[in-house]
Amino acid sequence: MARINSNYQKLQAGYLFPEIGKRVRAFAAQNPAAKIIRLGIGDVVLPLPPPIVDALKAGADELAHKESFKGYGPEQGYDFLLSAIAAHYREQGAEVQPDEVFVSDGSKCDTANIQEIFAADSLIAVTDPVYPVYVDTNVMAGRTGAADASGRYAGLTYLPTTADNGFDPPLPSSRVDLVYLCSPNNPTGAVMSRDSLARWVAWAKANQAIILFDAAYEAFIREPGLPHSIYEIPGAREVAIEFRSLSKTAGFTGTRCAYIVVPKQLKGFDASGAEVPLHGLWNRRHSTKFNGVSYPIQRAAAAVFSPAGRAAVQANIDAYMENARLIREGLTAAGYTVHGGKNAPYVWLKVPGGLTSWQFFDKLLGEAHVVGTPGSGFGSCGEGYFRLSAFGFRENVEEAVARIAAKLPAR
Amino acid sequence: MARINSNYQKLQAGYLFPEIGKRVRAFAAQNPAAKIIRLGIGDVVLPLPPPIVDALKAGADELAHKESFKGYGPEQGYDFLLSAIAAHYREQGAEVQPDEVFVSDGSKCDTANIQEIFAADSLIAVTDPVYPVYVDTNVMAGRTGAADASGRYAGLTYLPTTADNGFDPPLPSSRVDLVYLCSPNNPTGAVMSRDSLARWVAWAKANQAIILFDAAYEAFIREPGLPHSIYEIPGAREVAIEFRSLSKTAGFTGTRCAYIVVPKQLKGFDASGAEVPLHGLWNRRHSTKFNGVSYPIQRAAAAVFSPAGRAAVQANIDAYMENARLIREGLTAAGYTVHGGKNAPYVWLKVPGGLTSWQFFDKLLGEAHVVGTPGSGFGSCGEGYFRLSAFGFRENVEEAVARIAAKLPAR
Repeated sequence: MARINSNYQKLQAGYLFPEIGKRVRAFAAQNPAAKIIRLGIGDVVLPLPPPIVDALKAGADELAHKESFKGYGPEQGYDFLLSAIAAHYREQGAEVQPDEVFVSDGSKCDTANIQEIFAADSLIAVTDPVYPVYVDTNVMAGRTGAADASGRYAGLTYLPTTADNGFDPPLPSSRVDLVYLCSPNNPTGAVMSRDSLARWVAWAKANQAIILFDAAYEAFIREPGLPHSIYEIPGAREVAIEFRSLSKTAGFTGTRCAYIVVPKQLKGFDASGAEVPLHGLWNRRHSTKFNGVSYPIQRAAAAVFSPAGRAAVQANIDAYMENARLIREGLTAAGYTVHGGKNAPYVWLKVPGGLTSWQFFDKLLGEAHVVGTPGSGFGSCGEGYFRLSAFGFRENVEEAVARIAAKLPAR
Repeated sequence: MARINSNYQKLQAGYLFPEIGKRVRAFAAQNPAAKIIRLGIGDVVLPLPPPIVDALKAGADELAHKESFKGYGPEQGYDFLLSAIAAHYREQGAEVQPDEVFVSDGSKCDTANIQEIFAADSLIAVTDPVYPVYVDTNVMAGRTGAADASGRYAGLTYLPTTADNGFDPPLPSSRVDLVYLCSPNNPTGAVMSRDSLARWVAWAKANQAIILFDAAYEAFIREPGLPHSIYEIPGAREVAIEFRSLSKTAGFTGTRCAYIVVPKQLKGFDASGAEVPLHGLWNRRHSTKFNGVSYPIQRAAAAVFSPAGRAAVQANIDAYMENARLIREGLTAAGYTVHGGKNAPYVWLKVPGGLTSWQFFDKLLGEAHVVGTPGSGFGSCGEGYFRLSAFGFRENVEEAVARIAAKLPAR
């Protein structure tokens, strides 16, 4: 009898974004004239810059000719892309070798899959609020019990990351084997300082724990001195895996390319307590369950790191960060308490008037016709908060801010 | 303390193809003048046909403009591709709805990932010989014990599929929850008949078991009347998941696109014995751990199903199947006993002279400078067999056959 993985039955109904989609569709059906502005799901809107599209098409042309056709490539990625990524790390002051990089089709996939190389009874810590994929994939893998009324799963360690601690994740007070950290943070927009990361690296070393560091938004950091990579911190190569993505950096949410770094000296422990390099384990996982990223997409990804690609990508990031400024300043002027949006494309606002996050969602949609993301969708500490994304066209962002100020001032 | 998934330590060193690569590189280094012909790894060589490349580039161009830019798409795939796939199934006499199709970046990934939605103590059957990914991913997931000297893992049920039973997988004699079947078969090239599939469907129904049916090579079936899809068999929609790929069909090994069908009425059982639709489970897995296939690649994939795309793809398949005929007939004339190659791009030959598969590999490489795949790499029942792939340029295939006939006649 084919029995299912019953851990799936512990998952709470509906991932956050499908629920948002459902409510927006229902509203649009009832209000066909409303011009809805979507600042909910963090999806880019600006087109791929010409140097990147040209590289993608040139890669496609290579596939059209016998002499340059590409069949199976290395599962880890082509050298031209691995080398470009390693060079980019060096410029940022972090040591990463090309053969420590694994190219993939998304950070969602990578942050979802990484737990597979660790023991089934590993103790996991996540921040609260948190990107739901870290949690859900550990639920599916059986590392938790059931969820309680607040949505927290038994067996996971939640690290409240709120205004009270300046959105800086506190160290766990009990034993933890693996911790997911995300900086710049989705959803709060906060960035971990060098000191904060150094404290985490020291903690991981002392506890023989591993940090799973999601740096998908590093390209949005504007203030100098803030770390873009955990590998800027001495000793991090012994305790951390880093995830990066071109999705937001380069407008690749529909094009799909990301990468992960597993340093050669990073080790886990087997049942006998012997050290096992994680690089080899991940390589085995990656090459057994994945077959490499599409060749033309890798060509497009490499173009992101070219001088022309970088300049174009930076212009798009600047445009999004200008949106973030407009949201931050506009809502502040309208009486809102806002966080983030300075080094991240997300603004994390305190819901006014004692409403819940979903109540505010419905009110914002109903009165201002603006879609955002309820903070409670990211964890119980997100209740009473709301995420607005800076990914949108400037004119829409300006209109959204004006509508919120006019219809829903927070004073 | 971060402990590893110790199931990885049960895996046998080295996936088959890296070992082949190592031996070929060593030979090439010592024999720089030798013209090596590679019929080992089953990788396509013919370029992508113009209608497919044009669609890929048109998709890239859409990303270049704000009006047609695509960010996140549906994780399951775009409707235009899902509909094309469902229509293709209908033409083949199988009922598949568009929303039962999940587009992915490879059948390796899909056949590797599918086990995640089933119980950790599921009893698994595989044929012997078998595509190694089915086995390795269940080892990683902890469904086996250690491997014995022959490479067989404790806890798995192996179904010997050899010349003795006409390479037709026998039904298991003990309880099995999930069985992986591959037809046309990699590596033997055998195709399961309608009767054989009907016997399996009946067995699955009687045992509440699930068939994981890998049809990655269905496009290579030449003889009329042989089933291309398990869904041509009445009742199969209640017992089978089907995997298909554009890798070999359309030359997508470097372009990456595949799909899986999970019929709506297919059910597993939870711990209480209640039925649970597998479609929802896979949808949850797919949308939590995957973010959809690159938009331009989906455009290219849809072009495979267009009239012009089909004709071009068929011409390539014809060329490969002509290679298969040359290998089959040439080796038969040289005294070899050969199987497959009639409805599959693989020829499975009996190693002559009582050599092991790897001994023949070394001899073939050393004397004829031809690379093939040792049958033992696919399981202990593959020992004494050898796989030659029809994926190559005709002139190389002709030369390889001529060299084998001249240097290593089997009589």
